[in-house]
Amino acid sequence: MEYYGAIEAGGTKFVCSVAADPDHYFSEIRFPTTTPQETLAKAVLFFKEQQQKYNLSAIGVSCFGPIDLDKRSPTYGYITTTPKAGWEFTEVTGLLERELGLPVGFDTDVNGAALAEYKWGNPTKVDSLVYYTIGTGVGAGVVIHGQPVHGLVHPEGGHILVRQDKEIDPYSGFCSYHGNCLEGLCCGPSIKERFGVPAQDLPSDHPFWEILAGYIAQACVTQICQISPEKIVLGGGVMEQKQLFPMIHKKVLLMLNNYVKHPMILEHIDQYITPPVLGNRSGACGAIALAQLLQA
Amino acid sequence: MEYYGAIEAGGTKFVCSVAADPDHYFSEIRFPTTTPQETLAKAVLFFKEQQQKYNLSAIGVSCFGPIDLDKRSPTYGYITTTPKAGWEFTEVTGLLERELGLPVGFDTDVNGAALAEYKWGNPTKVDSLVYYTIGTGVGAGVVIHGQPVHGLVHPEGGHILVRQDKEIDPYSGFCSYHGNCLEGLCCGPSIKERFGVPAQDLPSDHPFWEILAGYIAQACVTQICQISPEKIVLGGGVMEQKQLFPMIHKKVLLMLNNYVKHPMILEHIDQYITPPVLGNRSGACGAIALAQLLQA
Repeated sequence: MEYYGAIEAGGTKFVCSVAADPDHYFSEIRFPTTTPQETLAKAVLFFKEQQQKYNLSAIGVSCFGPIDLDKRSPTYGYITTTPKAGWEFTEVTGLLERELGLPVGFDTDVNGAALAEYKWGNPTKVDSLVYYTIGTGVGAGVVIHGQPVHGLVHPEGGHILVRQDKEIDPYSGFCSYHGNCLEGLCCGPSIKERFGVPAQDLPSDHPFWEILAGYIAQACVTQICQISPEKIVLGGGVMEQKQLFPMIHKKVLLMLNNYVKHPMILEHIDQYITPPVLGNRSGACGAIALAQLLQA
Repeated sequence: MEYYGAIEAGGTKFVCSVAADPDHYFSEIRFPTTTPQETLAKAVLFFKEQQQKYNLSAIGVSCFGPIDLDKRSPTYGYITTTPKAGWEFTEVTGLLERELGLPVGFDTDVNGAALAEYKWGNPTKVDSLVYYTIGTGVGAGVVIHGQPVHGLVHPEGGHILVRQDKEIDPYSGFCSYHGNCLEGLCCGPSIKERFGVPAQDLPSDHPFWEILAGYIAQACVTQICQISPEKIVLGGGVMEQKQLFPMIHKKVLLMLNNYVKHPMILEHIDQYITPPVLGNRSGACGAIALAQLLQA
């Protein structure tokens, strides 16, 4: 059995673990994300202790962003222009490699989650998958042929522009960059700002869920048209509202209007746009998947 | 030197040629797209004659769509649910393989064009590229790591939903499926329907170009957020209006609002969103690229 170190590096908390795969976890520590120095030192200390017990092969880091994934760049492996105070241009992979003597796989939290769903939540062996998280923020990871997509920087699928009918949703949007982009209209804090209560306290029959489903359906339709993924996974805290799924399915079909004639869309959309198979473990499992990817 | 057969299979005309690469063309024939039987027979006859002179290695077909690219499907290599009368579920690759005894590379016209720009219009060696054609129709091809992206079907980037301000552009849209999707608002016929003249006869200082640039900029922004391509190429008849490029550049920067901090966007957007390096030969060169891809 191969042992991997996995770091789910979130803006609120870090989860560090030793695991072989999603079914074999050996130890775990969770701590709040404070300063970069303190937080990364805690992670290093945890893995140094674990190295006494386990022969770790690699570390995977599934990280909040934006991050630098360009191996030719002097800031490869850094968190870059993040709005999180104190974390701008923080070196992550170089520090871990030096301190632990291990190779480090590194990607966005959503690319990690997409990869985990591709590897372990994919019984029909699709070859391309989009993972959206809709929670405190909105982001999208993309895997094609088993590889997370990076491109120029990395996908930032939360910030696409969507149509908004101000007659039914006059809200100006929560995104500090784009106002009413997808994230601005769908993230958890936007729901709290609209109704004064967190998403989980809004009744499941509240008319807003139909409006929200419309935005998320637009994001799915845009992905279908732009890269034609074989599966779309919708995770994150807001998507715990399971009543959203049938609404999204119906609206995607209406928006596509029979244009993309594939049975996965026309007949099996409930298997095409789904909750994460790994549930809320996609992020943590993503870090394992990123460590394993180094050896692929 | 390797010789390839190249078919640019358009809804209006077929262009068949023998070439080694974009700089070495040996013969070419053009004929209108009539019935599938007649049109494909002409192509077969041309290549049978050419095979007397050239030892062809493979045929590439860059094809109007939608087409079936799923090699596990019984209709792989067919044009499928096309609105072009008589061409629904027309076998293309199987017929050519049987008649000519050659392997056939097959993809959408826009994926072919994207691949050609990636191979021969890419001096800085970007690893991912989106090619939009904005002409009679609107479509997008996507290449990542040297491979055209297929996914569930293939990209249909012309049909994303974009924001429209009906105060400045009250047009209902030309797309028979989606009305005012990107294609519905930007295709050549939509311009003719709005103003009664074809796009090339609308003065270059007409205020509509700013409106059109706004839709195309949204498409670019959506691609940047969803797959972060390293380059976006805008071709097709409508993009012959070169005044559109600086308008699109400016609007993309405004829409992104400094969110994606990469020098190619912030400093060199004129090298990031560009006309095709191959000019109007991207489609024809795409067919050569698809033939070569079989041997890669």
